[in-house]
Amino acid sequence: MNEHACVLGIDIGGTNLRVALADLSGKILARTSSTTTNVRDAHSVVAKIRECTDQLLQEVGLARTAIAAMGAGAPGVTNTETGVVVATSYLMGWHDVPLKSMLEDAMGVPVAVDNDVNLAALGESSFGIANGTPNFVFLAVGTGVGAGIILKGELFQGSAWTAGEIGYMLVPGVSEKPAAAGRPGPLESMAGGEGLRLKWLSLWPSTQTKLPKNLTATQIFDGAVAGDALANSLLDRAAYTLACAIHNMTLILNAPLFILGGSVGLHPALQDRTQSAVDAHARRLRPRVVLSSLGSDAQIMGAVRLGQLIAQQRS
Amino acid sequence: MNEHACVLGIDIGGTNLRVALADLSGKILARTSSTTTNVRDAHSVVAKIRECTDQLLQEVGLARTAIAAMGAGAPGVTNTETGVVVATSYLMGWHDVPLKSMLEDAMGVPVAVDNDVNLAALGESSFGIANGTPNFVFLAVGTGVGAGIILKGELFQGSAWTAGEIGYMLVPGVSEKPAAAGRPGPLESMAGGEGLRLKWLSLWPSTQTKLPKNLTATQIFDGAVAGDALANSLLDRAAYTLACAIHNMTLILNAPLFILGGSVGLHPALQDRTQSAVDAHARRLRPRVVLSSLGSDAQIMGAVRLGQLIAQQRS
Repeated sequence: MNEHACVLGIDIGGTNLRVALADLSGKILARTSSTTTNVRDAHSVVAKIRECTDQLLQEVGLARTAIAAMGAGAPGVTNTETGVVVATSYLMGWHDVPLKSMLEDAMGVPVAVDNDVNLAALGESSFGIANGTPNFVFLAVGTGVGAGIILKGELFQGSAWTAGEIGYMLVPGVSEKPAAAGRPGPLESMAGGEGLRLKWLSLWPSTQTKLPKNLTATQIFDGAVAGDALANSLLDRAAYTLACAIHNMTLILNAPLFILGGSVGLHPALQDRTQSAVDAHARRLRPRVVLSSLGSDAQIMGAVRLGQLIAQQRS
Repeated sequence: MNEHACVLGIDIGGTNLRVALADLSGKILARTSSTTTNVRDAHSVVAKIRECTDQLLQEVGLARTAIAAMGAGAPGVTNTETGVVVATSYLMGWHDVPLKSMLEDAMGVPVAVDNDVNLAALGESSFGIANGTPNFVFLAVGTGVGAGIILKGELFQGSAWTAGEIGYMLVPGVSEKPAAAGRPGPLESMAGGEGLRLKWLSLWPSTQTKLPKNLTATQIFDGAVAGDALANSLLDRAAYTLACAIHNMTLILNAPLFILGGSVGLHPALQDRTQSAVDAHARRLRPRVVLSSLGSDAQIMGAVRLGQLIAQQRS
């Protein structure tokens, strides 16, 4: 294979690091993933990325010079101009990490970085269900809730790189008290994985449910589908809360498509009930609520796309 | 004065038509306004615009050929590509009015049209308090509530020209029932002029207020400042509701500036209390809530700016 014939996509998550090598059309040639549970500081993560990359290059029989560029997603507020990760959640604990320059030094290739939810939106825009849709929102529902926003075909990050931080949105039914640091925000208390887990724990003692005390949000949704009343009320509330957020974003952005992704967001029962609740409030236009077509690969495919864009700029 | 040395700005409102003649730098040379109370159909409005324009040209001693282009604001959903006003409020009752081509036929100059609230945002961006701010929102609080959104220095209208239709936003405290046709939406029921008037009317019989039964929103706010308890509770609720909307828009758009305009929105007490309520919920960034610096001229100055932009494209 020629020099500069492939790109690298990196997805740095709170629990997993994924690395993918793709050709210039975005087709994955090889990929690997690795836990980040004990690899949290930025220097260790960069070293791990280098190690994974060398492993992938060896797998496909390519030299480092084959890499044209790389795109990397970070789990936090990211300045895409300077390539600095301003802040991540407490899990990673990063502050002002110059990820772009650290990766460029380590790998010797041009690098672009962005927030991981933004990259999931970019992935769906380029390789997924949003291809050809200029305005849409990717809703990442995992531990918390965040949004990646594509407007006029491009990622919109806002004045200080925090556009889409919707876990703190105020909609009917949420707590109106400012959230304590490190705790779920008002919207994600109702619709995010950690919020749902905490709500289940607090309601469990006073109800007749036969389900166990410790459940993940996805298990709660499974319980709802199987007919458990408490689980059903939590799923309904999560869907209604997300529907309010989608309604509000539709009014503001007039986007016709909302993509549910993330470990909790990919549950089909959530998508189904959210669409119904959205329809009940729809005005001129009924936004479509769909499941991510790339699933857990949305982020990494967005990182590959970012790598492609940098490679195109440089060639 | 040379040929093509000035532009026309038009603001078509539910009660007033304003026409301004400006030089190419945006300086107003002459202006006039006229009631639209009995001039509602599009053909009569266009005839009136022509009449007003001829009057202004005569005033400053210019021929029709001096006009390089014109920008016009319509009080409803406007397709800026085709120049068709898709729908206005019931006051005007327009549906699919080809305003751009009607004006071009009548005036013989290139015309661009947009929604009036969008033009207010454009006015503040070019000649007002938002000059130099790439991302901001103009909040028009009049009979209802609407927003004009500037992102990356440009108007953002959305996929079907309805971006910023925030009168229907769902925030804590609003009615969650879908609003009936022709009635204020959930957010504007609390914070818009008609919603406030109706709320005052419904609460008035059961309270001790010494203020009269029929009041405008602005009079209610004046009453609040003068110490009336009922008026005060309505002002507080309006400010809190607007603050929730601003909070939500800040999370989604990460815009640092919100400009209050419109007949109700220009009341200083509303701005003061809205900023306080926004501050109580602010996270990383505290968005600034300011009064429109162009006041009731925001729309017409945006129309002038739109005319300038068309004149620049054509020259």
